[in-house]
Amino acid sequence: MTNTYAVVLAAGQGTRMKSKLYKVLHPVCGMPMVEHVTNNVAQLGVEKIVTIVGHGAEKVQEQLGSKSEYALQEEQLGTAHAVQQAASLIEGLPGTTLVVCGDTPLIRPETMEALLSHHAETNAKATILTAIADNPAGYGRILRDEAGSVSKIVEQKDASAEEQKVKEINTGTYCFDNQALFEALKLVSNNNAQGEYYLPDVIEILQKQGETVAAYATDSFDETLGVNDRVALSEAERIMRARIAEKHMRAGVTIIDPATAYISAEAEIGADTVLQPNVIIEGNTKIGEDCLVSSNSHIENSIIGDRTVIRSSHVYDSTVGNDTAVGPFAHLRPQSQLGDEVKIGNFVEVKKSALGNGSKVSHLSYIGDANVGTNVNIGCGTITVNYDGKNKFLTTIEDDSFIGCNSNLIAPVTIGKGSYVAAGSTISKNVPSDALAIARARQENKEGYVNKLNSRK
Amino acid sequence: MTNTYAVVLAAGQGTRMKSKLYKVLHPVCGMPMVEHVTNNVAQLGVEKIVTIVGHGAEKVQEQLGSKSEYALQEEQLGTAHAVQQAASLIEGLPGTTLVVCGDTPLIRPETMEALLSHHAETNAKATILTAIADNPAGYGRILRDEAGSVSKIVEQKDASAEEQKVKEINTGTYCFDNQALFEALKLVSNNNAQGEYYLPDVIEILQKQGETVAAYATDSFDETLGVNDRVALSEAERIMRARIAEKHMRAGVTIIDPATAYISAEAEIGADTVLQPNVIIEGNTKIGEDCLVSSNSHIENSIIGDRTVIRSSHVYDSTVGNDTAVGPFAHLRPQSQLGDEVKIGNFVEVKKSALGNGSKVSHLSYIGDANVGTNVNIGCGTITVNYDGKNKFLTTIEDDSFIGCNSNLIAPVTIGKGSYVAAGSTISKNVPSDALAIARARQENKEGYVNKLNSRK
Amino acid sequence: MTNTYAVVLAAGQGTRMKSKLYKVLHPVCGMPMVEHVTNNVAQLGVEKIVTIVGHGAEKVQEQLGSKSEYALQEEQLGTAHAVQQAASLIEGLPGTTLVVCGDTPLIRPETMEALLSHHAETNAKATILTAIADNPAGYGRILRDEAGSVSKIVEQKDASAEEQKVKEINTGTYCFDNQALFEALKLVSNNNAQGEYYLPDVIEILQKQGETVAAYATDSFDETLGVNDRVALSEAERIMRARIAEKHMRAGVTIIDPATAYISAEAEIGADTVLQPNVIIEGNTKIGEDCLVSSNSHIENSIIGDRTVIRSSHVYDSTVGNDTAVGPFAHLRPQSQLGDEVKIGNFVEVKKSALGNGSKVSHLSYIGDANVGTNVNIGCGTITVNYDGKNKFLTTIEDDSFIGCNSNLIAPVTIGKGSYVAAGSTISKNVPSDALAIARARQENKEGYVNKLNSRK
Repeated sequence: MTNTYAVVLAAGQGTRMKSKLYKVLHPVCGMPMVEHVTNNVAQLGVEKIVTIVGHGAEKVQEQLGSKSEYALQEEQLGTAHAVQQAASLIEGLPGTTLVVCGDTPLIRPETMEALLSHHAETNAKATILTAIADNPAGYGRILRDEAGSVSKIVEQKDASAEEQKVKEINTGTYCFDNQALFEALKLVSNNNAQGEYYLPDVIEILQKQGETVAAYATDSFDETLGVNDRVALSEAERIMRARIAEKHMRAGVTIIDPATAYISAEAEIGADTVLQPNVIIEGNTKIGEDCLVSSNSHIENSIIGDRTVIRSSHVYDSTVGNDTAVGPFAHLRPQSQLGDEVKIGNFVEVKKSALGNGSKVSHLSYIGDANVGTNVNIGCGTITVNYDGKNKFLTTIEDDSFIGCNSNLIAPVTIGKGSYVAAGSTISKNVPSDALAIARARQENKEGYVNKLNSRK
Repeated sequence: MTNTYAVVLAAGQGTRMKSKLYKVLHPVCGMPMVEHVTNNVAQLGVEKIVTIVGHGAEKVQEQLGSKSEYALQEEQLGTAHAVQQAASLIEGLPGTTLVVCGDTPLIRPETMEALLSHHAETNAKATILTAIADNPAGYGRILRDEAGSVSKIVEQKDASAEEQKVKEINTGTYCFDNQALFEALKLVSNNNAQGEYYLPDVIEILQKQGETVAAYATDSFDETLGVNDRVALSEAERIMRARIAEKHMRAGVTIIDPATAYISAEAEIGADTVLQPNVIIEGNTKIGEDCLVSSNSHIENSIIGDRTVIRSSHVYDSTVGNDTAVGPFAHLRPQSQLGDEVKIGNFVEVKKSALGNGSKVSHLSYIGDANVGTNVNIGCGTITVNYDGKNKFLTTIEDDSFIGCNSNLIAPVTIGKGSYVAAGSTISKNVPSDALAIARARQENKEGYVNKLNSRK
Repeated sequence: MTNTYAVVLAAGQGTRMKSKLYKVLHPVCGMPMVEHVTNNVAQLGVEKIVTIVGHGAEKVQEQLGSKSEYALQEEQLGTAHAVQQAASLIEGLPGTTLVVCGDTPLIRPETMEALLSHHAETNAKATILTAIADNPAGYGRILRDEAGSVSKIVEQKDASAEEQKVKEINTGTYCFDNQALFEALKLVSNNNAQGEYYLPDVIEILQKQGETVAAYATDSFDETLGVNDRVALSEAERIMRARIAEKHMRAGVTIIDPATAYISAEAEIGADTVLQPNVIIEGNTKIGEDCLVSSNSHIENSIIGDRTVIRSSHVYDSTVGNDTAVGPFAHLRPQSQLGDEVKIGNFVEVKKSALGNGSKVSHLSYIGDANVGTNVNIGCGTITVNYDGKNKFLTTIEDDSFIGCNSNLIAPVTIGKGSYVAAGSTISKNVPSDALAIARARQENKEGYVNKLNSRK
């Protein structure tokens, strides 16, 4: 195969987004759309990816880093002008150049591959990615000759009534013979109403030179969606969401309602795991097999073992073992590590803490900055008092200990192995192993007091 | 422009709703459908709105108040009879009368405006709002003559096979020359199977009088949906929901899943705010710019500042400042006022309380009937004990104070500026500024107690 | 009517499900798909249901129990071979046999009934349930003769270009004259590429015998969906979900967003109850009239009274009275019984407890293994300490008592009628009626302590 280069057009402002955020950085399923594009292109094994940056250039470079080389388009003078900026990096090299817009995150690598193959097979100097639109209004139409080559791209405003009926449209994605591309770019003029240099003019120039221009029609119009405003952004999100959900279902994940399964592109989910409706799985999350993620759960950048149940809970940057139950209404904050067969019940917050196998925090507790051993039972309402207003301190709770309800464990403090803290105690000193710790006032019953109280009021 | 009047038909019972609630009072996106109609009509700048009431007349009048005048249709004898009830208010006045059903909440003011303009341009005595139905079965079909005027409305049951193929249907919305309307109404008979007086008969009467009857076809069939049962109600809700979401997206709000963004018609949302899936924003809510409203949040009649994050929380009738974080799993009950850079964490309830800038209630607390200053840190598990079984009392927590975990603040009580309440304390007396308050039993460790306990059991 | 028998084909492995769970046991709207099929068939009043089991035979029998008889297909040698296994139970009996696949949970009893009626009316020996597919590719096409009888079923691979245009397809559901069926089965060969015995061959055999083969075309293609992978499973779920929601809406339930109303087939909901978006109602749940179930609620196997509000809460295997309010963010665990006019507020867990009429647990509490009387007020942060690390004990709270905030009630313990527990008390002894119980350390204010502390640090 010949060398392949890719030029990603990512310099436009995107005023219709009405956003302070630069257009191509708007995320689709959690990833900036331009990063979807460069990731997809990278899967083709191209020699170079050149991203044309302009508005928000630094932010785009910061986002993509070393995934791409960059060329700056200081003034936005049209798509041909944009591609021209890549000249210093690829002009004159033998091979094929793919030109793709940074706002088309849905075009799959397979489709680009098919475009490149068609280009090679037809010996064309340029090949256009086209699609069949049910409603082609507004798009440039593709007119083909008898041989199937492209005879013309007609813009909407220039199209005759007959031409307007053509449903094959230009998606704005192309591949070119690289040398021919840069030769032709020199001939593109800005002699038009907007005073811009347009990339489709290259097609006409090549045709006038007697070169073949081919078109490869994808059968998925959806893929070619360009995101110019937030309505299209939500549409791209919907299509990609469905695509991700389908991938997981085909691999053996049950998704009760794919329309409300919000799964990042990079998430991994094991077979026979069930996702209830309205779950959000973000970032680099891995969920094991035979799990249940119940509705309204939100899991981000976390690793969940097998046979674990997450019920209507939030889990961030944490690790959860096998056969563990979390929720409903629990919150695992970053750097939480739960072992196997752990139970985190309702209204429990865990932060930057480790809990060993078989330990339980069943209700209404805050476990923060704590190191909890195995088989520990932490009673309802227990609080690790980790902050004194200035600093945070650690709590250590050793194996097999039992913490009574509504206890305060004032860090730094160690609760020894097998010890027992009585309900309602505020513990400020270490508790030795096997000891009972108690800090509680004696109960007094004042008989008849309520009657007196009522008669007074 | 000539004077315009509107008659809103809102007297029918709506038995197919199977509801104790009167049909036109069923809400769509939070507002009774008849109120959508009168609000939309009001935007046309009409002289008078006359709502014809019948079943549930008082409740409808109570809901709409001074937005409309009312005419009572004591018996429901048909749509012509209904319009006739408005005679005492508008009969004989020169001008145009718009007749619209109270169960068509989706017809936009722009569409009514276009209907009225078409009416004026065609010099018609009556103009019908029509739509093109993919499946016209069941609707009255519009037959036009060569000039485009309406020659006939044919009801489904009377339509020939040829007529049944006509896709232009009568939406039940009309405008009339007001004087001609009331003259014609006198000629309508109830000589039909149901024994009712039908408004479309006016059309035929005018035609027989040689008057022009025009039709204005909207290109949005969806808009003309009449709500007769709860299936149609949910459909109207879906269409209006999409319309509202699109409005916000076009104005620069990111909505991850517009299908599950439940936003009231009157809510305002700033640019670059992101709504995650499944958020409910009800009533007269204003959300600032650059906010994040995460999934499953429910915000009602509240004002949220800029750059504030609401995570999976409920907020009712409250005010939240800028750069503030709420949730996940927090509950702001009515009359809560949060300042800037406030943090309300998980499992925290705030009720009828003010919190000053920079104050934090991070976990598992109840702040009710409290006045909290700036830069206060309220520890996990803190409870304002505001109720003694008879009365509610206020808690005052002054600036820069620190409330230790699991504290009870028994109101009425004041915690002075810069003071410190030790964890686990029940505070029943005021705490002076800069004082440490402590109410705690001494900790006792009974060594080896657990072993004894186990051997006993 | 003649005797009717049903054969349910449920022996296939379902490798495309990629599941450890046997295909026909995958649930749709909470019920295994084969159980939908046998339940639907049972509504026809058939003499016998014979389920052909193979892979996972025991599990299927365990699930369906006495709802069916069973025949084991040890090797999966094709659909004709599968039906043949029912011979010992029904061969030779006079009457009609319905053959339906265990992976088609959406075919309604009404449709099967219509199929059987058509079969009887046409005096056919076999009648095929067919449907009209927009895109028939992949399905067997139905060719009819002038009389409307079936002349041929053509499989996709054997279909001519003309035949491929036929949109009437074989759904795989049939009824047969029972005696003719088993005679014909003996003639089916496995002389084909897969070496399997195919049920459609029976059709051809009967035709060769000069028998009439009829076809009944349902107008609902959706109904005939066969579930072979999890994408189809989610599609079946979506269709059944819509069907269930429509049933409730037509009966007077308001469902704000039917697309996200996840209601089990057996749930009952009273008129004028409102379901907000994203509610899950599972199992055998009954909800009364005029209730509000707000978004994100999850109710399973529970009974809810009239005029009760469940806000964003989880309710399992519990009973809730009339005019009661639960949530937001509450969790009723199994065996909870709430009376009328009860309030369970935010961050409250109730487990295996009864609460009498008018009692309130408004915030941040755990009520487990408790018997709570009427008009009891349980303050914020109250915990029933029901577990000592070994056993669980009961708490009794009698009528009209008041439990102060952040109290621990160490079970077994009884709080007497009309008594008052002071905030912050840990109660380990019974409290007599009308007594005040207090267990609290005295508050000490150390003036100027904070300044000292700050100067030290």
